[in-house]
Amino acid sequence: MRPPPAAPSAVSTFARLENDCFLRACFRQSTPHTPMWLMRQAGRYLPEYNATRAKAGSFMGLATNPGYATEVTLQPLERWPLDAAILFSDILTVPDAMGLGLSFAQGEGPRFAHPVRDEAAVAALAVPDLDKLRYVFDAVAQIRRSLAGRVPLIGFSGSPWTLACYMVEGAGSDDYRHVKTLLYARPDLMHRMLAINAQAVAAYLNAQIDAGAQAVMVFDSWGGVLADGAFQSFSLAYTRQVVAALKRTGADGQRVPVIVFTKGGGPWLEAVADCGADVVGLDWTTNLGAARARTHDRVALQGNLDPMVLFAPPEVVAREAVAVLDSFGPPQRADGGWGGHVFNLGHGISQFTPPESVSALVEAVHSHSRTLRCTPAG
Amino acid sequence: MRPPPAAPSAVSTFARLENDCFLRACFRQSTPHTPMWLMRQAGRYLPEYNATRAKAGSFMGLATNPGYATEVTLQPLERWPLDAAILFSDILTVPDAMGLGLSFAQGEGPRFAHPVRDEAAVAALAVPDLDKLRYVFDAVAQIRRSLAGRVPLIGFSGSPWTLACYMVEGAGSDDYRHVKTLLYARPDLMHRMLAINAQAVAAYLNAQIDAGAQAVMVFDSWGGVLADGAFQSFSLAYTRQVVAALKRTGADGQRVPVIVFTKGGGPWLEAVADCGADVVGLDWTTNLGAARARTHDRVALQGNLDPMVLFAPPEVVAREAVAVLDSFGPPQRADGGWGGHVFNLGHGISQFTPPESVSALVEAVHSHSRTLRCTPAG
Repeated sequence: MRPPPAAPSAVSTFARLENDCFLRACFRQSTPHTPMWLMRQAGRYLPEYNATRAKAGSFMGLATNPGYATEVTLQPLERWPLDAAILFSDILTVPDAMGLGLSFAQGEGPRFAHPVRDEAAVAALAVPDLDKLRYVFDAVAQIRRSLAGRVPLIGFSGSPWTLACYMVEGAGSDDYRHVKTLLYARPDLMHRMLAINAQAVAAYLNAQIDAGAQAVMVFDSWGGVLADGAFQSFSLAYTRQVVAALKRTGADGQRVPVIVFTKGGGPWLEAVADCGADVVGLDWTTNLGAARARTHDRVALQGNLDPMVLFAPPEVVAREAVAVLDSFGPPQRADGGWGGHVFNLGHGISQFTPPESVSALVEAVHSHSRTLRCTPAG
Repeated sequence: MRPPPAAPSAVSTFARLENDCFLRACFRQSTPHTPMWLMRQAGRYLPEYNATRAKAGSFMGLATNPGYATEVTLQPLERWPLDAAILFSDILTVPDAMGLGLSFAQGEGPRFAHPVRDEAAVAALAVPDLDKLRYVFDAVAQIRRSLAGRVPLIGFSGSPWTLACYMVEGAGSDDYRHVKTLLYARPDLMHRMLAINAQAVAAYLNAQIDAGAQAVMVFDSWGGVLADGAFQSFSLAYTRQVVAALKRTGADGQRVPVIVFTKGGGPWLEAVADCGADVVGLDWTTNLGAARARTHDRVALQGNLDPMVLFAPPEVVAREAVAVLDSFGPPQRADGGWGGHVFNLGHGISQFTPPESVSALVEAVHSHSRTLRCTPAG
């Protein structure tokens, strides 16, 4: 593996963190309210994002320019008192750096010019030169400086399996036929690809940590399409390799929590909770209280409002947010210990979301979660 | 509600059933092998299906012509010793009969000319005149006669929620934004639509039973997209209404089992198993042995091979089929009682499937499942 680029020299001068609620919840420590952020919080539902994107000319123009990436990453924080920022980037940067030729056609999803579908293509795969991803690490460093300690910055990557889905399918899919055919017909090739992906993802996330990321998240967006058994062997096993290889201390000496989110991963919650992550993300099909009981507060949980709730009137948004918070229950247990809950959606926010709904959501989460900390005086 | 059409006069003359394995497994009775059929077993992966479809001119031309529907329903049974036939039809026949204007554009999925998105459209909904669906009941009767007792015939319908998804979205969707917006913003309208759908589905399935269907299946294909809580209120509650309203005795006096399949419904298995169905269908994300333990053999289970396994070589198909059978375990318990397993895929067979894979699958399921009945002599 090639060495990651040197950490930016400015790292040690990063400002002290003002709002550490998110990090504390990740580590199941006491917090005055339930911290929240939204997957894809910097995105097309915000007019200011679309303005920046228009300046950048294209999605990749936006994602590969640290200045623009910084601008859009900070936009939702200007509107709302969110408790974390997340790097604006794309999960396909790593396979793009592997030379698969990523493009985004207008009105379509991502597409690879060179999908990986046979033995020769798998044999040609290698952990990419991280210097090709320097724009990501530069963005991380610039965002971290621009945040000036307001809230922590989350870095991220797709999981080895989720990257493999795109690498083999070459585009979005509704049946994952090509990648599953490879998995079942040539498990040896699939394991080789996943081992390379796992090394690449770990190096990529470690370089983000070196550049200033204060938490990292692994998006196993397509783990949930696998069969029981195959999920454990072809997705979770490689996510576990990634987690084991991660630095858990940032350039500033602070602990860096790891979040793993498998969409549709509810059936395997106990196994995911044992993968070494500090936080497990959940989609809206899993009841948070039941999930907490199944994992015995050994990990913090992140989630899990259905993003479609944000198309309802503000009072419904507030009511459903309260229901999610109540399903987790008071973070502090009767025995004095703390469970950790990071409020989020169960998937990325829709591009059609009215921003006013997010206002109602943030207000409801912060205000109601404070009441879950109040012990009524006798 | 309008009365269903009179049952065909030929009902009482239906031939005696030669292979009742499927029905016996549904009722958790002893069977010499694990019965199997495949969701969408009459379909585009079969050259003979495509030939009939070409004669019919279009998908709807095929589905609305009882002669053609009979022809394609029987085609997979000519190739393989499957243990059940399933009516060839479409799940959108009911909303089409409600007047929503179903069409299938070339290369696209189904589309409704008049999606149901506002109060006026919901107010205009009514249980359709079942006479508009006579072509379905005629197909059921003709298929049953043509089967001549070889195997039982399964009738089916979409669930109230799954029909509502299509009725509101007007087409396929990847986020269910319109139907979920209605659900969260106007639950009163959604409940009204679902109540009508439940009445319509029950009447539709009862008319199929009168026409000769020997089992019925409710496809809750999109129940799994709902949030925990919403699934119970907006999908399962109405499936339960349907199941409660079904005739459980066919025109020939035989018991008619009911199968409920919620794709992605694993998290709610216990609740689904309590809905009154005899059989619960499962997709490939749920381990059958764990599901059996969770439901204590109170219902039979149907499933759950990943259809993508059929793109692997025959020996892998056989190995994965064995793994599914073994995960359920021997149907007869140590206490002598029987659990029921109906082997199936976890979703419809892909149009790209090589038919040879189905040959390997049927052989493996029938032969290996016989060994699960053998008690080795001391």
